[in-house]
Amino acid sequence: MPKIITIARQFGSGGREVGRRLAEKLGYAYYDNEIINELMKSTSYSKEYIEEVSEKDPVPLFPIRYGSTLNPSPDPGVSMAIEVLSAQAKIIREMALKSDCVIIGRAADYLLRDLKPYRIFVYASDESRLARTLAREQGGKTEKQLKKDMKAVDKKRRKYYRFVTGKDWDNWENYDLCLNTSNADIKSLVDWLAHLFA
Amino acid sequence: MPKIITIARQFGSGGREVGRRLAEKLGYAYYDNEIINELMKSTSYSKEYIEEVSEKDPVPLFPIRYGSTLNPSPDPGVSMAIEVLSAQAKIIREMALKSDCVIIGRAADYLLRDLKPYRIFVYASDESRLARTLAREQGGKTEKQLKKDMKAVDKKRRKYYRFVTGKDWDNWENYDLCLNTSNADIKSLVDWLAHLFA
Repeated sequence: MPKIITIARQFGSGGREVGRRLAEKLGYAYYDNEIINELMKSTSYSKEYIEEVSEKDPVPLFPIRYGSTLNPSPDPGVSMAIEVLSAQAKIIREMALKSDCVIIGRAADYLLRDLKPYRIFVYASDESRLARTLAREQGGKTEKQLKKDMKAVDKKRRKYYRFVTGKDWDNWENYDLCLNTSNADIKSLVDWLAHLFA
Repeated sequence: MPKIITIARQFGSGGREVGRRLAEKLGYAYYDNEIINELMKSTSYSKEYIEEVSEKDPVPLFPIRYGSTLNPSPDPGVSMAIEVLSAQAKIIREMALKSDCVIIGRAADYLLRDLKPYRIFVYASDESRLARTLAREQGGKTEKQLKKDMKAVDKKRRKYYRFVTGKDWDNWENYDLCLNTSNADIKSLVDWLAHLFA
């Protein structure tokens, strides 16, 4: 059975970098936006819609009346989202079964739970995340805007995780290892992490 | 400056074993009940009282009226507890400055924050913790009693941590690394962990 590492991460924590470097070091496949590209091939929706649904906001059109007994008919927004999420779950499983891999986000830890992935959560202090995103932005956005983004993106990830898994995204019970990158050099951290899979 | 590793842990998670093995492997000093013994030498209180105050329940006699403006005089229960906790903080610092070490519990992560300890939290699922304590008990207590103990001990650790640090004990923001031992072999886990301090 292939070795699977899933990485959930707070916005700006460097979790994606942890995943990319770890995959590189171990010679594992790395899946992040690759999942979006595959989804675009297998469904008829726009890239924008897929990106929104596939990890961020599972039901951007989620209507308040959904679930009401007075309106039992399925909502087209929800049906569309479920179609994309089902396609995504199928693609993630196909990718995971192909070879050893690192998968970023998308509740892959839960979707692949029968395959016993090693589940990592990467987090950091607000200050550290802000500093990291500011450096990445290189002046494109103000600090205030980035703080807002940070909150909004994590809120969507939390909502997505809850929708797909029924559980809390930022609860350590769902992970094998939770890593604080606040005072860490990610390269050294990954050199050490890699020993776990050697 | 000595390398300091602090280990906070849920009851039954095997955190103490992680600490003991890690200290052994790295050749670091290991401090757990050693702290109680030193406290007994430096204060006049009973072992039972010190054990209760030193990590579990900082103010077992904490009266409801404490802090009320109508009763501004210090409560003897609180003064005694503060005396023990101050002595403990002093001992922990002396121990930490002596050599590289692993310290179990007692909010050492916070007490030594200026010395930049590496802060680990060890946790596990309820089932896993129950199985571990049942094995350790070897039939001495019923499952029901152990479940009760598990809750009660963690509640006291939470209360102690909050009293000493003003923060939440089971919040990953206070730690550099959080380890789930539910599906893990502790010996292998420690072999890997040790690489981080090599």
